[in-house]
Amino acid sequence: MKNIKLTIEYDGRRYLGWQRLGNSEKTIQGKIETVLAQMTGEEIEIIGSGRTDAGTHARGQIANFKTESNLTSGEILSFLNRYLPNDIVIKDVEEVGERFHARYNAKGKQYSYYVWNDVIPTAFYRHHSFNVPQELDLLKMEKAIEKLLGTHDFIGFSALKKTKKSTVRTIKEIRLEKEGSMLHFTFIGDGFLHKMIRILTGTLLEIGMGKLEVDVIDEVLANKIRQGAGETVPASGLFLDQVFYS
Amino acid sequence: MKNIKLTIEYDGRRYLGWQRLGNSEKTIQGKIETVLAQMTGEEIEIIGSGRTDAGTHARGQIANFKTESNLTSGEILSFLNRYLPNDIVIKDVEEVGERFHARYNAKGKQYSYYVWNDVIPTAFYRHHSFNVPQELDLLKMEKAIEKLLGTHDFIGFSALKKTKKSTVRTIKEIRLEKEGSMLHFTFIGDGFLHKMIRILTGTLLEIGMGKLEVDVIDEVLANKIRQGAGETVPASGLFLDQVFYS
Repeated sequence: MKNIKLTIEYDGRRYLGWQRLGNSEKTIQGKIETVLAQMTGEEIEIIGSGRTDAGTHARGQIANFKTESNLTSGEILSFLNRYLPNDIVIKDVEEVGERFHARYNAKGKQYSYYVWNDVIPTAFYRHHSFNVPQELDLLKMEKAIEKLLGTHDFIGFSALKKTKKSTVRTIKEIRLEKEGSMLHFTFIGDGFLHKMIRILTGTLLEIGMGKLEVDVIDEVLANKIRQGAGETVPASGLFLDQVFYS
Repeated sequence: MKNIKLTIEYDGRRYLGWQRLGNSEKTIQGKIETVLAQMTGEEIEIIGSGRTDAGTHARGQIANFKTESNLTSGEILSFLNRYLPNDIVIKDVEEVGERFHARYNAKGKQYSYYVWNDVIPTAFYRHHSFNVPQELDLLKMEKAIEKLLGTHDFIGFSALKKTKKSTVRTIKEIRLEKEGSMLHFTFIGDGFLHKMIRILTGTLLEIGMGKLEVDVIDEVLANKIRQGAGETVPASGLFLDQVFYS
């Protein structure tokens, strides 16, 4: 039995997200499993590093699966890229140790969020960014970013209800870069709660617009109340860049 | 009577090209004229700097039109961007002198062509580039580029049949830049013949692959025979970047 690790890029626009939903054809996991079943004749279940929501993109989603197949990594790569829809691309196939598990072994993740910050919209990046026409105070946003770094209970910045699982996470880095009209947020941490990046970005944007104060970060981290934070920005601007393993 | 100049960005993927074709809804010119007619109550014809083919994109197409309307440039910009499909964006609206003509006054143009040069395809740039998996000899391509610069009869590198109009053009600059897997060609000249950029790019790529020799450039410039040049590459990789006026 081989254990195969996949590195996957996808344009999430046409999909209901990563996770297979019943027999729906509209998930990334479902599409890849269907092609793997055709390739191997086995019923294959792939394990992703985590879910991505409907419309979210990925440059480096990681998944693994077990197979009895004798195909080489190169053959698996070619077969998948030939038969997958062209908005899902396998960047790399690697045989790994039998104990590798894409979700349990993940030590951290990097996400990007893109904001097209211009009164004039964009014809080219409209499905891969979120258009914010208002002027933004980037200095205020940087101050808010400093408050988010480190280890906190981020439940107030997530779509989760009360849960027994820990909602404490560590954010190692948030970068904010501007190139022309495009504002690029990079988030690196040991893990992110459901919709956390989109709510953090929404909160930072509302701070930049002057709709929320910088102190709202401390308040929501302390009182854990979702309503205190900003809106959830659309999935179109969100990319899973990388998953880190030790 | 005002003369209004538009700067237009469009994602050409869904369209049959710039030029209005009868009553077809599937052209950029047709889409813009329909919205202008709604806005002004006049029947408006816009003059583009030149046609772009089906599937070709633009970052800075220029057009002008005459109108009796009293709307300001800002009002025209807002109206157009509100009612145009979101793959056509008006970047700028400016009132110009009555003699300005987007086609007759154009002194030159800049185009880009993007090649995704990797055996692994791209999920994100698939509609905005052309995927070439073969390795390319960029040095040979640079040598071929030097031979193309300057003033020549380019009819052999065009889709034109014999014509009475001059097919002599001057190419001022061709740049070839690589960033990761993306190869970016930039062409600047006083004008380009029908499909000339796509045939020049196809020829340069075949030289890079070793399917054609560098000398093919001299041969086709001399004998003017289209068959000697490379294939026409797809419109998906082509962008009209800028139109120059004096």
